[in-house]
Amino acid sequence: MMKRILITGAAGQLGTILRETLKPHAKELRLSDITEITDLGPNETFVQCDIADGAAVKSLVEGCDGVVHLGGISVEKNFDLIEAANLRGVYNLYEAARQHGQPRIIFASSNHTIGYYRQDERLKHTDPFKPDGLYGVSKIFGEAVASLYHDKFGQESALVRIGSCTPKPENWRMLSTWLSPRDFTSLIMAAFTAPRLGCTVVWGQSANDMGWWDNSHAAFLGWVPQDNSQDFAEEIRRTVPRPGPEDSVAKYQGGVFTDEPIHQS
Amino acid sequence: MMKRILITGAAGQLGTILRETLKPHAKELRLSDITEITDLGPNETFVQCDIADGAAVKSLVEGCDGVVHLGGISVEKNFDLIEAANLRGVYNLYEAARQHGQPRIIFASSNHTIGYYRQDERLKHTDPFKPDGLYGVSKIFGEAVASLYHDKFGQESALVRIGSCTPKPENWRMLSTWLSPRDFTSLIMAAFTAPRLGCTVVWGQSANDMGWWDNSHAAFLGWVPQDNSQDFAEEIRRTVPRPGPEDSVAKYQGGVFTDEPIHQS
Amino acid sequence: MMKRILITGAAGQLGTILRETLKPHAKELRLSDITEITDLGPNETFVQCDIADGAAVKSLVEGCDGVVHLGGISVEKNFDLIEAANLRGVYNLYEAARQHGQPRIIFASSNHTIGYYRQDERLKHTDPFKPDGLYGVSKIFGEAVASLYHDKFGQESALVRIGSCTPKPENWRMLSTWLSPRDFTSLIMAAFTAPRLGCTVVWGQSANDMGWWDNSHAAFLGWVPQDNSQDFAEEIRRTVPRPGPEDSVAKYQGGVFTDEPIHQS
Amino acid sequence: MMKRILITGAAGQLGTILRETLKPHAKELRLSDITEITDLGPNETFVQCDIADGAAVKSLVEGCDGVVHLGGISVEKNFDLIEAANLRGVYNLYEAARQHGQPRIIFASSNHTIGYYRQDERLKHTDPFKPDGLYGVSKIFGEAVASLYHDKFGQESALVRIGSCTPKPENWRMLSTWLSPRDFTSLIMAAFTAPRLGCTVVWGQSANDMGWWDNSHAAFLGWVPQDNSQDFAEEIRRTVPRPGPEDSVAKYQGGVFTDEPIHQS
Amino acid sequence: MMKRILITGAAGQLGTILRETLKPHAKELRLSDITEITDLGPNETFVQCDIADGAAVKSLVEGCDGVVHLGGISVEKNFDLIEAANLRGVYNLYEAARQHGQPRIIFASSNHTIGYYRQDERLKHTDPFKPDGLYGVSKIFGEAVASLYHDKFGQESALVRIGSCTPKPENWRMLSTWLSPRDFTSLIMAAFTAPRLGCTVVWGQSANDMGWWDNSHAAFLGWVPQDNSQDFAEEIRRTVPRPGPEDSVAKYQGGVFTDEPIHQS
Amino acid sequence: MMKRILITGAAGQLGTILRETLKPHAKELRLSDITEITDLGPNETFVQCDIADGAAVKSLVEGCDGVVHLGGISVEKNFDLIEAANLRGVYNLYEAARQHGQPRIIFASSNHTIGYYRQDERLKHTDPFKPDGLYGVSKIFGEAVASLYHDKFGQESALVRIGSCTPKPENWRMLSTWLSPRDFTSLIMAAFTAPRLGCTVVWGQSANDMGWWDNSHAAFLGWVPQDNSQDFAEEIRRTVPRPGPEDSVAKYQGGVFTDEPIHQS
Repeated sequence: MMKRILITGAAGQLGTILRETLKPHAKELRLSDITEITDLGPNETFVQCDIADGAAVKSLVEGCDGVVHLGGISVEKNFDLIEAANLRGVYNLYEAARQHGQPRIIFASSNHTIGYYRQDERLKHTDPFKPDGLYGVSKIFGEAVASLYHDKFGQESALVRIGSCTPKPENWRMLSTWLSPRDFTSLIMAAFTAPRLGCTVVWGQSANDMGWWDNSHAAFLGWVPQDNSQDFAEEIRRTVPRPGPEDSVAKYQGGVFTDEPIHQS
Repeated sequence: MMKRILITGAAGQLGTILRETLKPHAKELRLSDITEITDLGPNETFVQCDIADGAAVKSLVEGCDGVVHLGGISVEKNFDLIEAANLRGVYNLYEAARQHGQPRIIFASSNHTIGYYRQDERLKHTDPFKPDGLYGVSKIFGEAVASLYHDKFGQESALVRIGSCTPKPENWRMLSTWLSPRDFTSLIMAAFTAPRLGCTVVWGQSANDMGWWDNSHAAFLGWVPQDNSQDFAEEIRRTVPRPGPEDSVAKYQGGVFTDEPIHQS
Repeated sequence: MMKRILITGAAGQLGTILRETLKPHAKELRLSDITEITDLGPNETFVQCDIADGAAVKSLVEGCDGVVHLGGISVEKNFDLIEAANLRGVYNLYEAARQHGQPRIIFASSNHTIGYYRQDERLKHTDPFKPDGLYGVSKIFGEAVASLYHDKFGQESALVRIGSCTPKPENWRMLSTWLSPRDFTSLIMAAFTAPRLGCTVVWGQSANDMGWWDNSHAAFLGWVPQDNSQDFAEEIRRTVPRPGPEDSVAKYQGGVFTDEPIHQS
Repeated sequence: MMKRILITGAAGQLGTILRETLKPHAKELRLSDITEITDLGPNETFVQCDIADGAAVKSLVEGCDGVVHLGGISVEKNFDLIEAANLRGVYNLYEAARQHGQPRIIFASSNHTIGYYRQDERLKHTDPFKPDGLYGVSKIFGEAVASLYHDKFGQESALVRIGSCTPKPENWRMLSTWLSPRDFTSLIMAAFTAPRLGCTVVWGQSANDMGWWDNSHAAFLGWVPQDNSQDFAEEIRRTVPRPGPEDSVAKYQGGVFTDEPIHQS
Repeated sequence: MMKRILITGAAGQLGTILRETLKPHAKELRLSDITEITDLGPNETFVQCDIADGAAVKSLVEGCDGVVHLGGISVEKNFDLIEAANLRGVYNLYEAARQHGQPRIIFASSNHTIGYYRQDERLKHTDPFKPDGLYGVSKIFGEAVASLYHDKFGQESALVRIGSCTPKPENWRMLSTWLSPRDFTSLIMAAFTAPRLGCTVVWGQSANDMGWWDNSHAAFLGWVPQDNSQDFAEEIRRTVPRPGPEDSVAKYQGGVFTDEPIHQS
Repeated sequence: MMKRILITGAAGQLGTILRETLKPHAKELRLSDITEITDLGPNETFVQCDIADGAAVKSLVEGCDGVVHLGGISVEKNFDLIEAANLRGVYNLYEAARQHGQPRIIFASSNHTIGYYRQDERLKHTDPFKPDGLYGVSKIFGEAVASLYHDKFGQESALVRIGSCTPKPENWRMLSTWLSPRDFTSLIMAAFTAPRLGCTVVWGQSANDMGWWDNSHAAFLGWVPQDNSQDFAEEIRRTVPRPGPEDSVAKYQGGVFTDEPIHQS
C-alpha cells in the first residue's frame, strides 16, 4: 500500500473513476484539479491547482510517493489552451517531481499521438508518431519530457497511451481502443509496485480481441488486462450503425480526431 | 446478417462444409461450381459456372454482398488446368466484383505460397513467397490480383492462406496447419462484418499449439480461433507413425507438395 | 566468354540494345522473337518463336548456357495478351530450361511489381509486392515461378526488377528509375559469371543519386553500376515540366501505370 | 529559381551563412529575425518579427514559395524562452503556411532530439526520440507539428536534424556531426525542387567518414553531400585533446548538452 | 515412450527433480554424475563419470535415444573449473553423440548468456549475447558447439536458456525467470518427440505474467507452459523486500551474477 | 603515436605483416609468440610466451597501451590445441588487461564464427553465429569474453571478424573476404585512436565490390577501407577455375572449413 498518491485532473471523468478504484491502494489520495472537488472521502484531500502554475505544482507533488497525471486538456483545443495545460503543465509536473524525491509518474498519454495510422496497421511502441491534432502533439511533448527526465535524472514513468477509458465501450472503434477502469487501475498499480519501471510506453487498452497495439515489450511489468471489449460487441453491433471502411472512425486509429480542424484561439 | 453470399467451388469438400456453417449468416447462399449441386437447401440457389468463363462469372457475382472464393484447383496440377481455373478464374472474379459493387472477397489462398520454408521457421505475412508448386504459384498470382484491385479500386479482400481445413487433423503436419471449419467460418464472418477489411492476409489456422504462423497483424479483425489441434494430438501420435526430421512432411511447411514434380499437360 | 546466350524478345527496344552490348561476351547470340529479325550480325542466329508455344520454347533453349528473358509484353495490356506472353510464356521458359541443363536465366521483372509504393518510400527486395496493373501481376507470377524452380530443381535466376532501361533518362521519374544499357549489360554478365547466383532479386537501376531501391543484399554478385542519372538532371529540369507532389508520376513508384485502367479483352 | 524564400532567424550564425549561399537560388530572400538586420543586399528584404507573434508570422509567410525556418532558440534555455520561440513559434509558422499556400518548409530540427543515444549506436530516422534537454524536446514538438500538418493538410516539410553547421568542424565530436554550409544549402535546394518532398526527416550531416546517422531513406531527394569532416581530422587531432570514452562529448550523440541542467526561469 | 534417456549432472538439484518427472517417459533413465547416486529407482541406472573425460562420456552416451545435459557447473566459478566441466564437457558430449547415433540433446543453457540486458528489455532468441560471467560465456560456447554439430552433422538440440528452475519462485526476479519443473519436463518431452527439432533455442521460463523472453519462434514444438509465477507473487511481495530499480537484481536480467567478480583459480 | 603496442602471435603470417605496417604508429612494438623472433627491428622487443600461460601473459600486457591479439590457432585443429591457445589464451589476455590498465584490445576474430551462412546472404554484425568448426567456436568464445569484460569492467575491444588477410586475394572466395594489410592496419589504428571504441564488432574486409558483410554500424570509428579485391578479379578469373554454385567454396561463407571434419586429439 502506498502512502500518498497524487491524482491531477481528479475532477474529470477519468479522475472520478480512479478516485474509486485507487482508494484501496493508498493511505491518502491527494486530489487536484482546477475545478473544486467537494465530495471528499475519508482518505482524500483536495488541493485546487492550475497545472500551468509552476509554484503551485511544486507544492502539490511534495510528499507524494506516486503521481497519476490526468491533468490538462484531453480533447482537441486551440493552441493557447493546449499550451498552458499540456505543455507548460507537464513541464511543471516533471520539474516538481525532480525537486521532490522523484515519485513515479503515470502519465496519461494518448492514442492521438499516433492517430493517423490506419486501423489495419498494428503498432509497436517504437513506431514513429503520427499525431492527429494539437492535442496529440502535446502528448508527444509530454512523452519527450518524460524521456528527458529519465535519461538525465533517473525519473521513472509509465507513458500510458490511453485508448478510450470509459465504463464500457460505446461504439465500433472502442471495440479496439477500450481500456476498462479496472484494467487501467491494475496497470497503474503494476507500474507503481514493479521493482523497476524505467520510462516505459504502455498502450492503454484492455485485452480486446480487436486490439491494434502490441504491448509485449512491457510484459516485464506483469500487467495482464482482464477485460475484453468483445463482451459488449453484440450490443454495439445491434445499436450502433456500422461505419464504412473509409469513414474516419473506421479508417484511422485516431477516429474523428482526424476530422477536426486546427482550433483557433 | 448478409443478403446473399456467393460461394464458388461450392461442390468441393470445403464448399460442402461451408454451406452448412454459413447458412445462418445469410438470407441466401448462392452456390456455384462447375459440377452440379442438386441437394439445395431452402436458402440456397445454384448457378453452374466455369470460373474460366468471364461472362458467366460476371452474372454470378451480380447481386451478392459477399464472396467466398473457393473455386479453382486446390492441388498440384498441370499448367493448363491451373491456368484456366486459378489464373484466369481469379482474374474473372475480381473483374466481376469491380463491375458489381465490389462485394468483399474471401480468397482461399494457401500455405503452398510459402511451402518451401522449413517447419522450424515462424512466418510473418510479409515474408517473401516460397511456393512449392504451380498451385502455390497460382495462389500468389491471386493475392497479387487482390492487391492490385485494392490499390486501384478500393476492393477489399481477406487473403486466407489456408493450412488444412478438414473436420479434424489427420496427420502430424496438420497439428500445425489445421483450420477447423468452425474457425474458418468465424474468420469469414469477421472479414465480412468488420468496419474495415482492407486487403489483409490472414493465416488460415486454428489456435493450434504447434502453429507456425503469426497472425498478430490481423488482430484488428477481432478473429480469435477457438479450436486447437492439440485436442487430437494423442490420437494422431497413437495412430500415425512419426515422420523423421528430414522427411518432407516434417521438414517443409508445404509437406508432400515439395515432393511433387511439375505435372505435364 | 559464354558459348551461346539466348535473348528472347530480341526484336524489342531492349533486345536491340542488348544485341550490341552482349556481342563481345558470347560466341553466339541466339535471338528470338515473334517478330522476324533480319539484320543479323556474324555471331547472331535467329529463331522465330511465340513464347506461348511450349514445344517451340523447348527447342529454343536447347544448347544455350545463358538466357536473357525479355520476351513477352512490357506494358499494360488485357488479360488474354498478358496471359499468353507473360504467364504461359515464363512457365514455358522455365520448363524448357529444366529440361535442357538449367542455364542461368536473367528474368526481366519490373518495378511495376511494386508500383503502388510511394516515391518517398525506400524498398528492400523483401518488401511485399504492390503491383500497379496486370503487367506487374504477371511479373510477380514470373518471379514466383523462378523461386519454385530454384527450390525444387536448383535452377539459378537473376530477377531483375528493371526501372527504365533507355539510352538516357527522359523525365523526372527516370532520374530515379533509370538503368543504363551499360549497367544492365554488366549486371547480366555478373549474374552469368558469378560462382553462385542462387535466385536473386536485383533492382535494375543505375547508380542514380535519386534511387529508391536498396540493392545491398545482392552485393555478393559484385555488380557496381557505373552510370548516374544525375548527369542528365539539368537537361531534364530544363526541358520537362516538374510534376506536382500528388501527380502519379511523382507520387507512385510505378508512375503513370497507376493511372491505367484494367484493359478489356 | 524560386521567387521568394523566407529565412527566419536570419540574423543568427546559420542565417548569416545561408543568406550568402541561398542568394543565387531565389529572386528575393525575405529575411526575418527579432534582431534587426541592416546590411541588406540587393535581393534581400527584411521584416522584423517575433516568431511568437502569430499575426506577425502570418504576414511574414505570405507570398513566399519556400521557408527556411531557423528562427527560435538553438541552445538549452529555460522553459519560458523555449516555449515562446520554439513551441509557439513553430505552431505559428505552420499555421501561417497553412493559410498562405503551403510553401515547403525546411525545419531546422536538431540532433538534440536524440542526444542521449551513445556515439557507438547508428540511428535510423525512425528510432525513438531521446532528447537531451528542453531544447531537444522543443524540436520533437516541431517535428510533430510538421507531421500533423502533413497528414491533415498535405503540407510538405524537410525535418533536418542538424548536427553542427559551422564553416568547419571544430572538435572531435563534430567529425561526426558536421554539416558544411555548402551541403546544407544543397539539401535545402533539393528539398525545395524535388517533385515530391512529403514530410521527410533528413539527418543534417555532411559525407563524414565518422557519421552516425543513416540517410538512405531520403535518397529519393537526390541529395548527396560533398564535404567530409575527414579533411579536418588531422588538424583537430593535433590541436584538440582527445576526450576519453566516458566523457559526455565522446559518449553521447548530444555531447555536452547531456551535461546541462534544466535551466530555471 | 523412450528407451533410454541419459541425464548428466543427475545428482544436482535439477537432476534430482527430473529423475522424478521424467520417470514415466522412458523405460530407463541412465543417470550420470561425478558424485555417486545411490538411491536408484527400478528404472534407473547410474554411471559415475567426469564429463571432462572424453572416453568416459563416449561410453555414457552409447545406447541412449535422448540426452538431458545438465552436467557441469551452474554458477560462477574460476576458469579452470568452468573449462573442464563446461567447455571440454560439452565438447565431449557432442562428440560422443556424433559417434553414437546422434540422440537428441537437451542442453541446459542459461539466461546468463544474456545477463547484462536490462529487465525492461524484451529479448528474442536472435539477440546478441551479453554474458554476465565466465559461466555465461561457457554456455555460449555450448550453444555454438550445438550449432556446429547441427550444421555439419545434422545433430538436433534444444538449447534451453533456463531462467530459474526451482519448485517455486523465491524472489522478485524469479517472478520473471521461473521455470517450473513440470514445464521443464514437458519442454524436454516436446523436444524429444517433435517430428523435427532442428537446433532450436528455447527460453526456459514458465507462462509467467512478468516474463522477459519471446518464445514465439519455437511454437512449432507445441510446448505450452502451464505454470505461472503469478500464483506466488503475493507471497513473495509479502515476504521479500522489494529491490530498488537500480539494484542489480531488478536492473539486469542476470541479477546478482552481474555483481560477481571474475573468480581466480 | 602510441607508446607500446603488444602484438601477440607476432611470428605468424599476419603478425609478420603487421610488424611492418604498425611500425610507424608506436614508439615500441612488443612482439610475442610461442616461436622465437630473431630479426628484431630497432623499435621492436620480443617476449617469448605461451598464451596459455596465465602468469606469462600478465607480464606481457603490462605497460602496453594497445594490444593486437593475433595469438592462438587460426585454422581448424583438435579441441586440445584450440582449448589451450584460443579458449584459455583469450581468457588469459583479458584477465591480464583487466589487471594492467585495460589497454584497448584488437581481437582477431574470424568469419568462421558465421561460416555456415550461404554466400548469397548478407550479414549484419548482430546476426546469430553459425560456426563452421571448433576454430570458429573458439572465436565466438573470445567475442563473448570481450563482451563480458566490457559490460563488467569497461574494457574496450574491436572484435575484427577477419575474412582473409593476405597481400592479395588468391581465389574466387577471397574476392569477397579479402582484407588488405593496409586496410587492416588502418582499422587497428582507427580503433586505437577513436575517442570511444566500446566493444564493437567490425567485419574485417576491404572495400570489395563482392563483399558480404554490412559494416555500417561501425562507421563511427571513421574507418574507410581503401582497397578493393576487384583490382585482382581479372587475374583470378584467368588463373583459378570457377567453382560451381554448390561447391563449398562458393556456397558457404566459411568456404572449405565447412568441409573439415572434427579433428581428433
